Amino acid sequence: MGGRVHEALAAARLVDHHCHGVVTGALDRPGFESLLTEGAAWPGISTFDSPVGVAVRRHCAPLLDLPRHAPPEAYLARRAELGPHEVNRRFLSAAGTDVFCVDTGYAPDRITSPGELAGIAGGTAYEVVRLESVAEAVAARGVEPHAYADTFRAAALDAVGRPDVVAVKSVAAYRTGFDLAPERPSEAEVTRAAADWLARGGRLADPVLVRHLLWTAVDLGLPLQLHTGFGDSDIRMHRVDPTHLTDWLHLTAGTIPVLLLHCWPYQRQAAYLAAVFEQVYLDVGLTLHFVGPARSRAILAEALEITPFRKLLYSSDAYGVAEFHLLGALSFRQGLASLLQERVDADELSLPDALRIAAWTSGDNARRLYGLPAPSPSHQASATAHPPSPESMI
Amino acid sequence: MGGRVHEALAAARLVDHHCHGVVTGALDRPGFESLLTEGAAWPGISTFDSPVGVAVRRHCAPLLDLPRHAPPEAYLARRAELGPHEVNRRFLSAAGTDVFCVDTGYAPDRITSPGELAGIAGGTAYEVVRLESVAEAVAARGVEPHAYADTFRAAALDAVGRPDVVAVKSVAAYRTGFDLAPERPSEAEVTRAAADWLARGGRLADPVLVRHLLWTAVDLGLPLQLHTGFGDSDIRMHRVDPTHLTDWLHLTAGTIPVLLLHCWPYQRQAAYLAAVFEQVYLDVGLTLHFVGPARSRAILAEALEITPFRKLLYSSDAYGVAEFHLLGALSFRQGLASLLQERVDADELSLPDALRIAAWTSGDNARRLYGLPAPSPSHQASATAHPPSPESMI
Amino acid sequence: MGGRVHEALAAARLVDHHCHGVVTGALDRPGFESLLTEGAAWPGISTFDSPVGVAVRRHCAPLLDLPRHAPPEAYLARRAELGPHEVNRRFLSAAGTDVFCVDTGYAPDRITSPGELAGIAGGTAYEVVRLESVAEAVAARGVEPHAYADTFRAAALDAVGRPDVVAVKSVAAYRTGFDLAPERPSEAEVTRAAADWLARGGRLADPVLVRHLLWTAVDLGLPLQLHTGFGDSDIRMHRVDPTHLTDWLHLTAGTIPVLLLHCWPYQRQAAYLAAVFEQVYLDVGLTLHFVGPARSRAILAEALEITPFRKLLYSSDAYGVAEFHLLGALSFRQGLASLLQERVDADELSLPDALRIAAWTSGDNARRLYGLPAPSPSHQASATAHPPSPESMI
Repeated sequence: MGGRVHEALAAARLVDHHCHGVVTGALDRPGFESLLTEGAAWPGISTFDSPVGVAVRRHCAPLLDLPRHAPPEAYLARRAELGPHEVNRRFLSAAGTDVFCVDTGYAPDRITSPGELAGIAGGTAYEVVRLESVAEAVAARGVEPHAYADTFRAAALDAVGRPDVVAVKSVAAYRTGFDLAPERPSEAEVTRAAADWLARGGRLADPVLVRHLLWTAVDLGLPLQLHTGFGDSDIRMHRVDPTHLTDWLHLTAGTIPVLLLHCWPYQRQAAYLAAVFEQVYLDVGLTLHFVGPARSRAILAEALEITPFRKLLYSSDAYGVAEFHLLGALSFRQGLASLLQERVDADELSLPDALRIAAWTSGDNARRLYGLPAPSPSHQASATAHPPSPESMI
Repeated sequence: MGGRVHEALAAARLVDHHCHGVVTGALDRPGFESLLTEGAAWPGISTFDSPVGVAVRRHCAPLLDLPRHAPPEAYLARRAELGPHEVNRRFLSAAGTDVFCVDTGYAPDRITSPGELAGIAGGTAYEVVRLESVAEAVAARGVEPHAYADTFRAAALDAVGRPDVVAVKSVAAYRTGFDLAPERPSEAEVTRAAADWLARGGRLADPVLVRHLLWTAVDLGLPLQLHTGFGDSDIRMHRVDPTHLTDWLHLTAGTIPVLLLHCWPYQRQAAYLAAVFEQVYLDVGLTLHFVGPARSRAILAEALEITPFRKLLYSSDAYGVAEFHLLGALSFRQGLASLLQERVDADELSLPDALRIAAWTSGDNARRLYGLPAPSPSHQASATAHPPSPESMI
Repeated sequence: MGGRVHEALAAARLVDHHCHGVVTGALDRPGFESLLTEGAAWPGISTFDSPVGVAVRRHCAPLLDLPRHAPPEAYLARRAELGPHEVNRRFLSAAGTDVFCVDTGYAPDRITSPGELAGIAGGTAYEVVRLESVAEAVAARGVEPHAYADTFRAAALDAVGRPDVVAVKSVAAYRTGFDLAPERPSEAEVTRAAADWLARGGRLADPVLVRHLLWTAVDLGLPLQLHTGFGDSDIRMHRVDPTHLTDWLHLTAGTIPVLLLHCWPYQRQAAYLAAVFEQVYLDVGLTLHFVGPARSRAILAEALEITPFRKLLYSSDAYGVAEFHLLGALSFRQGLASLLQERVDADELSLPDALRIAAWTSGDNARRLYGLPAPSPSHQASATAHPPSPESMI
């Protein structure tokens, strides 16, 4: 595991362009095990008995002063003993992340705000606005169907007008999948669909309203993050192959950047889109900590088969437990370093090129895309920040 | 190839939770070549010139007292010289399988019964009832459309009431694929579809009746094995992505275990389902001997990226030639050992954890799921067995 | 990288069964960068910053007397200095390709004819007729809708009657994808669809006419090459999974060979079809140079998991820049050699078998399929050739 690329990636300060907060309270075993999976915690099967559980015991236990591969009982006991604040501090510091772009739209648990998260890590926080949450808040406040489109747009503009917002996000993948008509729906269609939804209630999952949401994102002018592939059992995986977006990408070419998040098992399909559409970028977040450092290189190798090197970003998609912030970072560093170093050793890639690719993907690509300031030499960071105004904001 | 994990997996007594019998008579070259493929034997192309053919010549020839990589002619001559009984004995003994769960619903050739198969191997046999065969037998005996549902259910209950039955199986993948409406069809729908089918004849391939069959499996209460992915040219591969079953899995959550068999090239999609649905399990049988020990590790690595370790089972899906019983076992042992040992060597996995994963996947997971008795210390085994009554049997 | 398999594949004279000509004029940086990608050249992102760009700088620069990993500026300056003829000569000679089967239906740039291409390389050229181009030429010349079918068939017969034509090709993947009704359309359907298309103009993209084109290929009796998978942004990737062709392959079994080109990311799906349909063959051209020698082995390993060894062919699918003819050949040689040599070293494959597989896939399979003459011992070759008349020609 030696070599200059490993050293560079081990030392790199990361931009995590998509993540969530961590739980601030104490976690008992069921609570921790439940956060350890995209499924549920099932009786008789410990979620520790999985690739991510093995990775936690291997890589996180030492940060709690335990031996590598400590058993779950010892791990949880020590975690409880240290308390949530100290545990979060240790993992977030060790992750080596300077910048956190935090999706604030999903928080069934009491979790840290972006500022709190970055504060613990000594980094800087930006916010990613989840558009479905904005739309559902509009519905919850009450709106007439014919006013839905304008009210949602105004609420979205308001949300992205906050000084630390750098992107919007959609979970269309969870709601309808990507097999949607590509065109912007008409006003009449939106009003009709809004009438149905507002009468029925529940989550925004109407195909017309999801399309309208994606087109509203285009109007907002900020980069759009799209959940893609792996997630919980709400996903219908065969409907979230991102190449279903091809017609929509043609129609929206020249407008906003589109960030395909996670992508597994469709990392090759995402790479194809990133290779042929100027506006498409991807990451393999979430997957990285679920497969762990033992397998992250294989996923990254597929993601990078044809992807232009300015198109891959780093994200953890960590949620709930700070272990995932650490594991995502570690899996990315080790997987990418192993991949690049082997190519350098085989003289398939020059060392300077490998170091450039490492720097681009660990942070520069995200900084360029979101218009974030260059890292300060001393890694001094504050817990909040003001990004530059996107020029394309309407 | 050294190391403790290799030793443990080489010595493990396997539970093959899905396989078939072997041909009892002599096989000429066309007969053998035809069984060596999921396609057909084609003029001018020997099926030996394929990954599985290479694996047979490499790993099976020595068990016939031939050098490694013996040519096909020598292989078949020696096979004929020894005779089918001795050939079957050698491969089945060498496979190291203790328990065979045998799908008895597919037998175009004269093959061994479950008891005969296990008897040759010195193991124990259980039976897996193929529901399409039960339904087609009901149709063949003659039934009125309005009585089809009850008669099929009674016949299925009768079939699974035999003392050695541990599971049912469906080949819905071959008949309609998985892109089916998820709900249980109404009585009227079933009667109408049965009327059409019974008038038309042929295999059960009507979407309503296939859905009805899957829901009947839920009523039976036994684990359901589902052919998934790779098979012969009757498969429409794009329709057998198991994630098409997601809605049905939501509707049937809390009822029966669902075993996704084979899965390639959808092993990642199957792993996703196993990670988010409590009732879903998978194997990569069939694929293992078709790709051979040289490639089984890569398939297992994908299958295990996110799969909880209690969710992967071993099967050979061997049919016809006893070589496949050996090769499936060998590909599993070597592929998994190579994967786990490398992680142990890299200190990504502890040795005790690796040994537990090896023990679970080689047999314990299947024993737990099917309620099979623990292995006897001396590996004494009889050719038939009585499993415990499933509690959920109706 | 030593070993007998590496030596054999390094020395093999290749049959490139699907490629295109190279640009004959000088290329400025935008022109070269644009040809370096299946996307477009985008402002602010150099196409050199991609896997294929890295591979060009690593493997092509030395042939221009530059150091490995030369920077893009130096590379393009030296390329301009040598001039297109010398550059093309160097790369085409170094590719080691004896036979070029050239798709002449795509030439937005001024590129070499098949004879010119082969002449530069000291090899032999054959032609592949792109049927969409034939149909579009028929439309451009003017035809009545009811005469379209006969006129297209006559024009296609005329095109394939040229002495050097060995195959036809369809880009149905780009026009409709493969999710088509499998049956031959009726005369009335074709006339109706032709009336619409001829009135509307543009590319042939009507599903009925694309089906008619594929069935016309069956009538022509020559091998049919089908673009599959990876391509530019006209592709809707989820519609070009080749297993959508399964019903059509059943209907056309026993007629013409079908060559699945490129295939990535569907190389496993293509391998499945090649394993179960006698008439199906595949290659992983295009992908090979886009991923480069550092990753070609991984793609070939997936393509070969279950593919019979007489079913894999070599192609470069190079277009425009002669670098791709070299890189395709190099990626194939190194990737396959690495794969086979490792199996030989692990005694999973005998050396004679490895050498046979190398010889088959580098040329013998293509020669057998297209009825090409055996290579002359001295590798003397002429720039044109007359293949034997296909027996099945109507």
